[in-house]
Amino acid sequence: MAAPNRATLWGRVLADELAKGGLEGVCIAPGSRSTPLTVAFAEHSEIDVYSHLDERSAAFFALGRARRTGEPTALVCTSGTAAANFHPAVMEADQARVPLLVLTADRPPELRDSGANQTVDQVKLYGDAVRWYAELPEPEADERTVRSLRTTAARALSETGGPEPGPVHLNCPFKKPLEPLEVPDAVPDSFAETLAGRGREGAFVETDSGTQTLADSQYRPLVRSLEDADRPMIVAGPADPADLTGLEPEHVVTVAERLGAPILADPLSDLRFGRHVADSVEHGSGSDDAVPIVYGGYDGYIDSLPSPDVVVRFGASPTSKPLRHALRDSDARQFLLDPAGAWREATFTATDLVAAAPGPVFETLAKTFEERRPTDGADPRVTRTDWLSRYADAERRHWDVRDDALESDPFEGAVLAAVFEHAPDPATVFVSNSMPIRDADRFGRPRSADLTILANRGASGIDGIASTALGAGSATDDPLVLVTGDLAFYHDSNGLLAVDRCDVDATIVLLDNDGGGIFHKLPIEDFEPPFTDQFKTPHDLEFDSLAELYGLEFERVDPADFAAAYRRSLEREGTQVLSVQFESETSHRRREELERQVNEAVSSALEGESMD
Amino acid sequence: MAAPNRATLWGRVLADELAKGGLEGVCIAPGSRSTPLTVAFAEHSEIDVYSHLDERSAAFFALGRARRTGEPTALVCTSGTAAANFHPAVMEADQARVPLLVLTADRPPELRDSGANQTVDQVKLYGDAVRWYAELPEPEADERTVRSLRTTAARALSETGGPEPGPVHLNCPFKKPLEPLEVPDAVPDSFAETLAGRGREGAFVETDSGTQTLADSQYRPLVRSLEDADRPMIVAGPADPADLTGLEPEHVVTVAERLGAPILADPLSDLRFGRHVADSVEHGSGSDDAVPIVYGGYDGYIDSLPSPDVVVRFGASPTSKPLRHALRDSDARQFLLDPAGAWREATFTATDLVAAAPGPVFETLAKTFEERRPTDGADPRVTRTDWLSRYADAERRHWDVRDDALESDPFEGAVLAAVFEHAPDPATVFVSNSMPIRDADRFGRPRSADLTILANRGASGIDGIASTALGAGSATDDPLVLVTGDLAFYHDSNGLLAVDRCDVDATIVLLDNDGGGIFHKLPIEDFEPPFTDQFKTPHDLEFDSLAELYGLEFERVDPADFAAAYRRSLEREGTQVLSVQFESETSHRRREELERQVNEAVSSALEGESMD
Repeated sequence: MAAPNRATLWGRVLADELAKGGLEGVCIAPGSRSTPLTVAFAEHSEIDVYSHLDERSAAFFALGRARRTGEPTALVCTSGTAAANFHPAVMEADQARVPLLVLTADRPPELRDSGANQTVDQVKLYGDAVRWYAELPEPEADERTVRSLRTTAARALSETGGPEPGPVHLNCPFKKPLEPLEVPDAVPDSFAETLAGRGREGAFVETDSGTQTLADSQYRPLVRSLEDADRPMIVAGPADPADLTGLEPEHVVTVAERLGAPILADPLSDLRFGRHVADSVEHGSGSDDAVPIVYGGYDGYIDSLPSPDVVVRFGASPTSKPLRHALRDSDARQFLLDPAGAWREATFTATDLVAAAPGPVFETLAKTFEERRPTDGADPRVTRTDWLSRYADAERRHWDVRDDALESDPFEGAVLAAVFEHAPDPATVFVSNSMPIRDADRFGRPRSADLTILANRGASGIDGIASTALGAGSATDDPLVLVTGDLAFYHDSNGLLAVDRCDVDATIVLLDNDGGGIFHKLPIEDFEPPFTDQFKTPHDLEFDSLAELYGLEFERVDPADFAAAYRRSLEREGTQVLSVQFESETSHRRREELERQVNEAVSSALEGESMD
Repeated sequence: MAAPNRATLWGRVLADELAKGGLEGVCIAPGSRSTPLTVAFAEHSEIDVYSHLDERSAAFFALGRARRTGEPTALVCTSGTAAANFHPAVMEADQARVPLLVLTADRPPELRDSGANQTVDQVKLYGDAVRWYAELPEPEADERTVRSLRTTAARALSETGGPEPGPVHLNCPFKKPLEPLEVPDAVPDSFAETLAGRGREGAFVETDSGTQTLADSQYRPLVRSLEDADRPMIVAGPADPADLTGLEPEHVVTVAERLGAPILADPLSDLRFGRHVADSVEHGSGSDDAVPIVYGGYDGYIDSLPSPDVVVRFGASPTSKPLRHALRDSDARQFLLDPAGAWREATFTATDLVAAAPGPVFETLAKTFEERRPTDGADPRVTRTDWLSRYADAERRHWDVRDDALESDPFEGAVLAAVFEHAPDPATVFVSNSMPIRDADRFGRPRSADLTILANRGASGIDGIASTALGAGSATDDPLVLVTGDLAFYHDSNGLLAVDRCDVDATIVLLDNDGGGIFHKLPIEDFEPPFTDQFKTPHDLEFDSLAELYGLEFERVDPADFAAAYRRSLEREGTQVLSVQFESETSHRRREELERQVNEAVSSALEGESMD
């Protein structure tokens, strides 16, 4: 079956090759110039189409889906400002290393800079934020050009992946007719075969990509340093799809156990939650033997503990500022593992940059240290009891103080604590930037449950939050929880349309403190004006109307009743917005007070020890 | 009074110099890195600050304000995706030639590409869409650097203007402290003087820009062609601030009258509405003597009339596709006047590109033809009665047919007709892209009233519509009318927050046909699926909830009662949303039918004439 015209041929070949290359989902915003792409994706049985009306939200939805699956999601828009609306999500995908394939329809070259309607300069529109940019040739019924199109499609998909996944941009010029209208003699019948690719199953070009691994000799500095360390530490920062490739949390745990090294696990690291987290930790058992290996409370106590002397880090810079500063201020030898060899190191702390995927490295390290396990059966941690047990003690005190404080006065932190404690197993929990991710870091206790915690931590914007969460939710059958502040909720209010249009359910936890609570953390708090008008920016929005617009259930929840309301929502179908109202200044003062209490508890324990 | 630290010094010098250069308004979205700019603008008494929570809407608001005033408006955001959210409006400002000064805060250079939080590559972020890009030096208390900062500020403002106004981007790196905290010895006291600029009133660098004008000899081809023309025509396309510089509609009218040339005035041209439009035209008086000179109905009848032989055009490509095609298909000599010498000519029609501002050209032409007026007092139009009277006759029949049709069946076109007919004098009317601007073109009858009609016709997106309108409304005391479709209303729903935050009132006419009605105009209408799901995209949104969220009055209006509801709203304070519901397919069939009727009426009149 030949294509009725060249634009249709182009759309079909592209969709076909991308599907054969493994593309499973595409987000499309309506438009005329993109008709050949839209029609081809819509008629392709192997690709799920998610229709969006706001390109900015569409792009974040695609980002969320790709982030959750680690597989590329495609995006389609018409020419003009539509493409610029993709820019924020493209930027986040670049920074967070998320595979996105952006297809922007364009006018043909002769109409560029001609004053033609809805025609802008889309060439290299996203600058260096994309891994690869290509301009498709104009549709032609010419064998070489069609072969190039298939090859470009395969390549584009491949370029979204590899050691440093990210966005790829194909600019796609089309002439009329854009619709599948018959144009006599435009596409010879023989092209029906070309449409099928090669005369075999599968892609025109199959692509695969190796992983950067270390030779045996390259392990030596790392292994020796760890063996010689008195105070070794593993820091798992926020992970991206390539960080996670082949990474088995159990290998990290094995290494940590053999070394007696605490794993400081960022909530976005894939290490803070999971089966590898020991039950003893999870349930906070009082037994002294139950020394945890995964640590989540460090943000509260890291300043009160001795510095490590050897650190192995992977993932991006940790969310916790106290941790980042403690690493910066330590004299430790610090190995930073990065699959792309990038220098994600804003405190300029690392002494060794190791360009290799963390997964294979930890697998090898685990084997190495397993083999060297003392034959007399002694627990290797014994040699470092003092070091690890200080962390264990601090972690225990940390959660004790927090639990007491949150129970007596359930402020914003209590909501985050409950979100993680009561999340179903498995679940996807998406956390907004600004205060929610910081509170997730402080109040999200390690737990032996299959929780996937996600955030837009590449560029850390508060845009596109609802869309990214819903996109992530669309990728699996796991229950979806979104924790958002009111400004982020407002910013991507359009994204809520996807609940209905893309059929995703969520429990949306709205921490409504009427403005930018995070600014209370900053010195600008003391400058009034302009603090309230230009920084805190209270808006007085009553979000029940917004929920009504998008057909969501809306419930105002008292902080003390949050856990119960949250569990109820998780048991129900549909999407509920649980709005918990706070006064941001009070919340901030509570955080400060709590930090003081934890540090006091940890410090006094240390003093007690040294007096022993 | 010296600045407490260097970042504060920087912000103050910048705000001071921009204010002295004439900047009157800035749109700011909250953020931390931009604190030095935000604080400086907020404390500056001569600059109005508009606070927004969504950067995309902020940018469109600034665009609207700048578009309405023709003067630059500034924009401030923090680092990261915030800056990418400005991109759609920057693109529109580029295409529509609107002066915008974009100030993006950035991390200092050492934190770029370092994995630092909220740090992206902002260098040349908007590519070629800006007239000028500069990276500010890092704040320093050094005289030369401060002089450079003042010069850069003056230059940036100046670069937004000139013959081709547009956006300018200054990327502004700042180190902590960002707040006005005292840093001992950071800024010597002597810098208090530097803060004041030179020891005189006014800007550090005063800027001015000439206008591209023609020498006498350069007028010859134009004047001779017009004198020799049998069927001269003036086409006023959508105008931008530079097109309007020094343009007096009366001069255009004088030229047209002396030549007997119809002025085909785009609704966005500044020629379709205004005092220069004769009362006889406005009231459609039946007198045969009342030959109009400004024509607005050409979209309906241009195909039925003879071609012009000489055309003078200015402004961008006309909104009307029939007009664009008629020009393309004519053999006329076509002079295109453009103040920047740009080739805004997507049909590649013009035979002569004249790089000169239309204002001075028409002033000179008016004088030239005034002087050559026949001394015997004969009306020069008499020689071309046949040519102009055909237009007059077609125009009259056009409006007669339309009036009858709209009265008997008030579909979407009737709403646009009423919007212009009953708009207060003066008023600003902002019209969304997609169908509203096309219907404005067809149904907006020329009127002797001071109406400023605006649209985002540079890149013709449906994004940022509410914000652009409200920004335009903020610039004057004129009543503001916004005509929008439902998709555009949804797309920039966040922009409605400005009604309250920026204190702008509007009458919002919402043409709600539940999806993208424009796709009924296109061949894709016949392909189902994917027509409904991927193109028409009905969404079922009930916008009364959205109005409630933003505290707007909401009224569902029957099409037959629209004019009355519209007039009531215009007499009231506050912002009303008048929602008029239509079925888009029916509307489209009515447009087709009406087009047929008008062409029939005009053609039969022509036949009648030729039989005379």
